[in-house]
Amino acid sequence: MHHASPPALIALDWGTSSLRAYLMGREGALLERRTQPWGIQHLPEGGFVAAFRGIAGDWRDRLPTLPVLAAGMIGSRHGWQEVPYVECPADPAAIAAGIVAFDGGCGTVHIVPGLIQGGGLPDVMRGEETQIIGALAIEPELATASLFVLPGTHCKWANIRAGRVVRFTTYITGELYAVLRDHSILGRPAKEAVVQPVDKASAVADASFHRGLKTALDSGAEGMAGRLFTTRSLFLNGELSAPQTLDYLSGLLVGEEIRSVTAGLHVSPCPPIVLLGDAGLCDRYRMALAAFGINTVRTLDETGPAGLWQIASAARLLV
Amino acid sequence: MHHASPPALIALDWGTSSLRAYLMGREGALLERRTQPWGIQHLPEGGFVAAFRGIAGDWRDRLPTLPVLAAGMIGSRHGWQEVPYVECPADPAAIAAGIVAFDGGCGTVHIVPGLIQGGGLPDVMRGEETQIIGALAIEPELATASLFVLPGTHCKWANIRAGRVVRFTTYITGELYAVLRDHSILGRPAKEAVVQPVDKASAVADASFHRGLKTALDSGAEGMAGRLFTTRSLFLNGELSAPQTLDYLSGLLVGEEIRSVTAGLHVSPCPPIVLLGDAGLCDRYRMALAAFGINTVRTLDETGPAGLWQIASAARLLV
Repeated sequence: MHHASPPALIALDWGTSSLRAYLMGREGALLERRTQPWGIQHLPEGGFVAAFRGIAGDWRDRLPTLPVLAAGMIGSRHGWQEVPYVECPADPAAIAAGIVAFDGGCGTVHIVPGLIQGGGLPDVMRGEETQIIGALAIEPELATASLFVLPGTHCKWANIRAGRVVRFTTYITGELYAVLRDHSILGRPAKEAVVQPVDKASAVADASFHRGLKTALDSGAEGMAGRLFTTRSLFLNGELSAPQTLDYLSGLLVGEEIRSVTAGLHVSPCPPIVLLGDAGLCDRYRMALAAFGINTVRTLDETGPAGLWQIASAARLLV
Repeated sequence: MHHASPPALIALDWGTSSLRAYLMGREGALLERRTQPWGIQHLPEGGFVAAFRGIAGDWRDRLPTLPVLAAGMIGSRHGWQEVPYVECPADPAAIAAGIVAFDGGCGTVHIVPGLIQGGGLPDVMRGEETQIIGALAIEPELATASLFVLPGTHCKWANIRAGRVVRFTTYITGELYAVLRDHSILGRPAKEAVVQPVDKASAVADASFHRGLKTALDSGAEGMAGRLFTTRSLFLNGELSAPQTLDYLSGLLVGEEIRSVTAGLHVSPCPPIVLLGDAGLCDRYRMALAAFGINTVRTLDETGPAGLWQIASAARLLV
C-alpha cells in the first residue's frame, strides 16, 4: 500500500456504542478509516484487547513505533483503563497533560482524559472534548468565542472562549425521549398503533415536531414539565395520531432543551453556534434552533481525527 | 348487621390500580368500606363483572333498589364503559349531567364523567374531579378560591373558583421518576448498588431530596432540564452515594414541578393550597412546597366517598 505521507499516529475514537480507528499521516492527513460496532458496552469476545487487535492490530504489527491515542468512554470507569478527568476550563495542553499511558496487552495505548466541571453543578464529558478540539483546529476563528452543541443520547452544550472549554452542560434529551417512548404512557399509542409511523422526512411528522417545539417555546419560564402530558391529551382528543405523538414528544423535549439554554444565555448577542455530529440529529436541532429565532448555525462533522491529532501533538506523542 | 342510617348509595372509586367500594347511608354517612387491588389494569378473572360482583355483589343482592355510582378510570376508553368528558370549568351539577347509566351485566351502574380542558393545552382527568368535589363538600370555604394538588403517578394541579374546577394541569412527575429510575443511566448506580437504599425516613435521604429540590429551585427560568444529569455527575464525583441518587432525582423532579407551577402563578397571593391523597406522597410535596417558601398547606384524605355522594345528590340518584 502506498501512502502520500508516512503514517504518524494510530487514533481511536472509542465510545459507548462504536469504535472508530484512524491511521493518520504527517500534518494530520487521514490515511485510513475503520469502524466497528465495538463500543465499550458492545465488545466482541475477548474484550478490549480483541477489539483493539481486531480494528488496529495489523497497523500496530506493521508500524510498532507509532503512538496510539484513544479518546472517549474507553477512559471511563467501565472502560479499558480509567483516566481521571481534567478540570474545566481546559485547552489542548491541559487535556494533553492528563493523558494516561498504559499497556493493556497490546503495547502502549495513550488515553485522552475527559473533562469535569466543578462547583455546585458538576458535569462530565468523555470524547466530546476531542471533537471540539478538532473543530477548533479546523475552524480557528471559533476559538475566540463559540457555543458548541453535540446532539446525541446525552447532548453537550459547551462554551468556548480563548481556545478553552470554559463551561458545559449535559442535556439527556435523547435518553429522555427513548425512555418515555419505550416505557411511559406517552409512548403507548405509537407502540399499539396499527398504522406504521410516518416517514420522518414527511411534512406531517415535521408539523407535529414543530407543534411540540412551539409548545415548549410558549411555556416561557414555566418550562414544559406541565405540558408533557399534552402528548397524551392531544392524542385522546384526536388532534394527534398515534405516530404523530412521537414527533410531538420529540419537539417538546428538544424544545425544552433549547428553551432552557436560551433562558440561561446571559451574553448578547449569542455567540456563534456550532452543531457537531450526526447529520440527521444536527438537522433536527437546526430546525429547533430556527423555531427559537436562532438561524445562524454552522454544522461540522467528524472532527474527532483532527482533535486526536491536535491532542497528540500537544502531548508531543508525534515523533 | 345494624346500621345507624339506612343504606342509600353504593359508591365505587375505580381507578387504574385499585377498586374501592363504599356503602353509604342517608346524609352521606360511610357505613362500610372495602378495597380490592382490582384496578382496571388488574382485573380478576371474569373482568369488570367479576370485580363488581366480588366487591359489591352482596350489597346489590340485598339492596337491589340502591343506585350504584362509580368514578375514575372505569369510565375511560379502557374501562367498563367509556363516558365522554365534561368540559371545564365544571361544577357538581355539570359533572352530574354527564353521568352515563349502563348495564354491564350486574344491573344499572352510573359512571361519573372525567373532565377535559380545551384550548391549546388540552388536559384530562378521571376520578380526581370526584375527590375535589368531595373536599369542597367537606371544607366549603375552599370553594371560593383554592389550588388543589393530587400527587401520584400523574399529579394534577386544579384551580378552583366559585365552586367550579376552572383549570388544571397534569404533571407526570411520578411516572417520569419511575422510568428514569428503572430505565435510564440515572437509575443505574442505585440498581447496581450493593448497599441497600437507605430508609426513606432517614435524614440522609431527606438531605439528598432537599438538595435536588434546591437545584430545581435555583435553576430559575432555565428549569432543571440541564440539571438532570447532575444526578450522575454528583455520583461520579462522590458527592452522592448510589442510594442517595434516587432521593436527589426525586427532589429534582418534584422541585421542577413546583418551580414550574409557581412560575405560572399569575395571582398574588397564591390561593390556599390543598394536598389530597396518599399521606406519604403528600408529605413529600409538603416538604417541597416549604422549600419554595409555601408553608400554608392543608392536607385532606379519602374525600372520594363525599365526592360520589355529592355527585349522586346533584344527579338526583338518591331516593
